[in-house]
Amino acid sequence: MVKSSEHNHPVKAFGWAARDSSGHLSPFNFFRRSVGEKDVALKVLYCGLCHYDLHQTKNELGNSEYPMVPGHEIVGEVTEVGSRVTRFKVGDKAGVGCMVGSCQSCENCARDLENYCRKMIRTFNSKDHDGTTTYGGFSDVMVVDEHFVVAIPDNLPLAGVAPLLCIGITAYSPLKYYGLDKPGLHLGVVGLGGLGHIAVKFAKAMGLKVTVISTSPGKREDALEHLSANSFLVSRDPEQTQSAAGSMDGIINTAVGIRDLVPLIDLLKSDGKLVMVTAPDKPLDIPAALLLLAGENNFRLLLMTSERKMVGGSLIGGMKETQEMIDFASKHNITSDVEVIPMDYVNVANERLVKGDVRYRFVIDIGNTLKSTC
Amino acid sequence: MVKSSEHNHPVKAFGWAARDSSGHLSPFNFFRRSVGEKDVALKVLYCGLCHYDLHQTKNELGNSEYPMVPGHEIVGEVTEVGSRVTRFKVGDKAGVGCMVGSCQSCENCARDLENYCRKMIRTFNSKDHDGTTTYGGFSDVMVVDEHFVVAIPDNLPLAGVAPLLCIGITAYSPLKYYGLDKPGLHLGVVGLGGLGHIAVKFAKAMGLKVTVISTSPGKREDALEHLSANSFLVSRDPEQTQSAAGSMDGIINTAVGIRDLVPLIDLLKSDGKLVMVTAPDKPLDIPAALLLLAGENNFRLLLMTSERKMVGGSLIGGMKETQEMIDFASKHNITSDVEVIPMDYVNVANERLVKGDVRYRFVIDIGNTLKSTC
Repeated sequence: MVKSSEHNHPVKAFGWAARDSSGHLSPFNFFRRSVGEKDVALKVLYCGLCHYDLHQTKNELGNSEYPMVPGHEIVGEVTEVGSRVTRFKVGDKAGVGCMVGSCQSCENCARDLENYCRKMIRTFNSKDHDGTTTYGGFSDVMVVDEHFVVAIPDNLPLAGVAPLLCIGITAYSPLKYYGLDKPGLHLGVVGLGGLGHIAVKFAKAMGLKVTVISTSPGKREDALEHLSANSFLVSRDPEQTQSAAGSMDGIINTAVGIRDLVPLIDLLKSDGKLVMVTAPDKPLDIPAALLLLAGENNFRLLLMTSERKMVGGSLIGGMKETQEMIDFASKHNITSDVEVIPMDYVNVANERLVKGDVRYRFVIDIGNTLKSTC
Repeated sequence: MVKSSEHNHPVKAFGWAARDSSGHLSPFNFFRRSVGEKDVALKVLYCGLCHYDLHQTKNELGNSEYPMVPGHEIVGEVTEVGSRVTRFKVGDKAGVGCMVGSCQSCENCARDLENYCRKMIRTFNSKDHDGTTTYGGFSDVMVVDEHFVVAIPDNLPLAGVAPLLCIGITAYSPLKYYGLDKPGLHLGVVGLGGLGHIAVKFAKAMGLKVTVISTSPGKREDALEHLSANSFLVSRDPEQTQSAAGSMDGIINTAVGIRDLVPLIDLLKSDGKLVMVTAPDKPLDIPAALLLLAGENNFRLLLMTSERKMVGGSLIGGMKETQEMIDFASKHNITSDVEVIPMDYVNVANERLVKGDVRYRFVIDIGNTLKSTC
């Protein structure tokens, strides 16, 4: 590993960090690297609060190092650019999402899929090229390789844009990759949280017919009236799920609690695609053959095989596609529904996030509230 | 159900049938329908013997009715055509595969995917449109709707063509549908039985690099020298599987005994596709997230999601694609490796089939040996 020290990191930075797996966040002084010739420096204005931040600050994935400055849904203003930076100038609005680096030489990087690079560097709690730890967007300033910075158009409210850098691309990329972006197709969206609500917005803008699938009947009104979904399905109601069987071209599953994929596979038409965009924490059962009673006297053998259905995955998206997603959002006026909070509310927000008590994303007003807390 | 009787089925037929779940086959006299205006009558020349025949004659899928005449890999000569038949004339060679009917009005039928029609009529042990039971190719004559009959080119040995009607299309269709037909792609073929050996042949003809994955080290020579696979992987050897990790664009799994898909998913590159073309008889585990120790000090989180891999299914293929497959086989001189047997050897062949003792397909010489046994 390359040796490094604060000699290479002379830029004073201030943020909020977790010190241990309690996940409790508190003020933290640290350093960032000087602006290199291909780097962009940002004054952070807004940063979203995502379940992934929580998993990491609480060491739920087992790889956390402390102190940890989370935050990976970052929008800010460019304050300095390196000599070889071509796409940004001081004063531009810019965004940083889940990653700040990759090998840029593998097959995936060559295909603009830095998100699938095995050496992808995450925005926080990751090792940077120089061996130092990366710190995220719960901080006043970011210094990031231009390649991993996205241009933010002027027409969108910045607080609502910040979450798109994570949930926006996570929803947009599989819709494109799995061909679920054609007008008229019928898409199911499982779970109506941050990721689910933005998946509905992108799918509607693409002209799809959208059914929200949720365990919570209470989300019906929000799905249908606020988000303009075409229909709403309570996943625990056998009558509703049976009447929707075989009706969907694709399903985006944003719910981490799903254990059994069969009821979702049943909702798909032939050639239907079930896409997992979050990772369940336990193995899943996918019976390749399941026997269903379909009448008084006959059994119908329903095979995943027999209707050419598939189960696939998708994880965020590459930088080129992230820019494409932001431009699409700009054109269609898509932003996340947000509850903007001050920095010192973050620990309360974390508690509410665990309970799902937010519609649909907390975004920290870093620009106006970070400094006031110290 | 439409009433029917032998009044509508005046054509005397003779074949071999199972009488009960012992699966033992013996001579059987029965009737087929008259040749309708859209029907083709065939004198059966060859019929392959497939695991599916065994599953059905032994009632392993729980839906068997007796007496049952199996056989769904049929090649014969046209002896009569109905007045509205346009694609065949007397004397033509023709084939019949896994199905003899479908609704021809649903979305799948409209897309030439009769194989995914929910009313697909199987070649035997199925209910025909008139409510009668279908009887398969272990018989002297077939009467089949032209739509479900395939033209057989002259340049291929007929015995080797017969199995293509089942295993040929089962291998060909997913290679096309999942985009695994591009020269230079790296394909894994799990299992070197009837289905596996034909998958290797089609993939090689398409210009793919093929690795045979098997539990049996003894199949190496056959895979590499006889079938010209590029490499051979013993799936139970951790060293071999680890060195092949992340190297394949797709895998066709032809092995019914597979329980754990993770080792196969590990062999895939990003965007890799694992396609199940047979249905395992028990649920499968697909951990969406699995934790792998990848060094002394760090864990690598390997997600199905994190490399955009997918698991899909495929079942035979539609009639249009079956003809395309046969034409492709004709162009590239692809036939199944067969052991041609007389009709009265079928019960012994079934025993050998259970033990995997065949390279790679039994084909019954119906034309020359069926009548001689009675």
